[in-house]
Amino acid sequence: MSTAGELGEFGVIARIGARLGAPPPPAGPGDDAAVVGTPDGRVVVTTDLLAEGVHFRWDWSSPYDVGRKAAAANLADIAAMGAVPTALLVGIALPASTGTQVLDGLADGLRDECALVGAAIVGGDTIASGDRLTLAITALGDLQGRAPVTRAASAPGVLVLAGRVGWSAAGLALLRAGAAMSGLEDLFAAHRRPQPPYAMGPALAKAGALAMCDVSDGLIADVRHLTDACGGHAEIDPELLDLDPLLVAAGDRLGCPPLEWMLTGGEDHALVAVLPEGVHLPGVRVIGRLDPTPAGHREPTSGATGGVRVRGRSAGFGAGGHAHFS
Amino acid sequence: MSTAGELGEFGVIARIGARLGAPPPPAGPGDDAAVVGTPDGRVVVTTDLLAEGVHFRWDWSSPYDVGRKAAAANLADIAAMGAVPTALLVGIALPASTGTQVLDGLADGLRDECALVGAAIVGGDTIASGDRLTLAITALGDLQGRAPVTRAASAPGVLVLAGRVGWSAAGLALLRAGAAMSGLEDLFAAHRRPQPPYAMGPALAKAGALAMCDVSDGLIADVRHLTDACGGHAEIDPELLDLDPLLVAAGDRLGCPPLEWMLTGGEDHALVAVLPEGVHLPGVRVIGRLDPTPAGHREPTSGATGGVRVRGRSAGFGAGGHAHFS
Repeated sequence: MSTAGELGEFGVIARIGARLGAPPPPAGPGDDAAVVGTPDGRVVVTTDLLAEGVHFRWDWSSPYDVGRKAAAANLADIAAMGAVPTALLVGIALPASTGTQVLDGLADGLRDECALVGAAIVGGDTIASGDRLTLAITALGDLQGRAPVTRAASAPGVLVLAGRVGWSAAGLALLRAGAAMSGLEDLFAAHRRPQPPYAMGPALAKAGALAMCDVSDGLIADVRHLTDACGGHAEIDPELLDLDPLLVAAGDRLGCPPLEWMLTGGEDHALVAVLPEGVHLPGVRVIGRLDPTPAGHREPTSGATGGVRVRGRSAGFGAGGHAHFS
Repeated sequence: MSTAGELGEFGVIARIGARLGAPPPPAGPGDDAAVVGTPDGRVVVTTDLLAEGVHFRWDWSSPYDVGRKAAAANLADIAAMGAVPTALLVGIALPASTGTQVLDGLADGLRDECALVGAAIVGGDTIASGDRLTLAITALGDLQGRAPVTRAASAPGVLVLAGRVGWSAAGLALLRAGAAMSGLEDLFAAHRRPQPPYAMGPALAKAGALAMCDVSDGLIADVRHLTDACGGHAEIDPELLDLDPLLVAAGDRLGCPPLEWMLTGGEDHALVAVLPEGVHLPGVRVIGRLDPTPAGHREPTSGATGGVRVRGRSAGFGAGGHAHFS
């Protein structure tokens, strides 16, 4: 039994289930649906797709890495609402030729990332389809009685960042360039396995965060999500970002300005939030300000209509059109 | 703008979102995650993948049909726990060349099937990937204070069926054979759009159902899921099944025994349940019995080790090895 096709659907499910451990009661994998406790009376829920060739490559990431990364992307979305992840569901569309070591690695990676936050894998589905593997992950979370922290701030505050930005993008750039990794292994690892600051989501919510999202598209693009949600404007001060020596070294090796990775690189799943002025929280770094009123109202001479401004710059980045500057 | 690739990820999300209507508060599509009310203190959750070429073909099903069917498969799983569906999340992995009319049809179909049960589409994800469309649906449901009806019966009872079986399989067989559809359009329609008896899930739970699952793999295979879950045995009496004249006509046209479709055909998403002896519920048909004790204990001379028996037969069906008979 060395491929998914030989195992068959139920064999694949049994094999993955065996690595994930016993399902929590009253109903878990193997029934029509799972039952998850929601003592808060609400559940936070998100779903994400990750596809081979789009979000990962087998020559750069192991199955274990992909499992970790797929879980992380979803668990970070739960944290970005200020919630604590509680459960994961896993859909896997895979070629029949997929080796069992791939299934084992995926399952172990999903399990270990969930273990970081105490979430249980409660259900899933597998189908044989296509020639590339696609993961469809759904995560559930608990707000613990707090209001969800949406992307829409209702008052001005300081922009704060928890976690790393630019690391995954730098690692990917090194991989794409076929550059020597010596001394920069942590960037490579950051691309393969992001390390979202899960606990900072609830911590930011408790500290009174006015808005929050995770940095999956890039810092500018995701702050833009915050300004779009409230119709306001924000300024990021690049001097306040923590330019790690590793990013500088990677920039030197590739001849790229490392700040670009920090401003436009996604997939590290840091958390960017708006805190009320004067609120201090260990573990976050102030990187700018956000105001939920349109820029034009406060800066009538700038001609700005909202959006994100990076201090000291007048031109935009290549951030896929998600960011504009005035 | 005629393809998903031209619209881009955010354009695809906006286009689909516009057809689905406003998200329910406090957070819906467009935030990191959605928040769904769970007044019961628990949530029922399930996920399913449907892939082009595996679960549907564009020459046999319209995008609208596929949306309906994808939602139905998941909503039926919620009903099979005795719960009421409340919310859906939709992941779509699609070729960049996918036409906008496909997106529109899918969204409309998902929306209309959800409307049947009052469920809201609260979130999702889309990615451009591969050359075939894959849907990853997650459904949430509310138990309304009742215990979930799992697949594991704790006491013997009568096997009951709510909804149709064999219709989708007959429609598929007609399509595969290129047979004339005149007079049999309802079978064709049943394959494209199953009609799960959603309301019967909670009704069976209220009536005291001891076990339940939806018929997605085929009646024998799914009753086998019930006997596997409790370690018991069951008997289906084919004479108690409602052999519809349409199935007989299709059988005549193709030269197939229509009972085979009813016993082994999946995808109609009927509900099969175990009710305590003497409980009568409008809308269900008694089709046999299930006992959660191993067959060998009660029928020491049969040599049976459990599983599903079809009355009057001694040989198995081609049900993918999921059914065996003694």
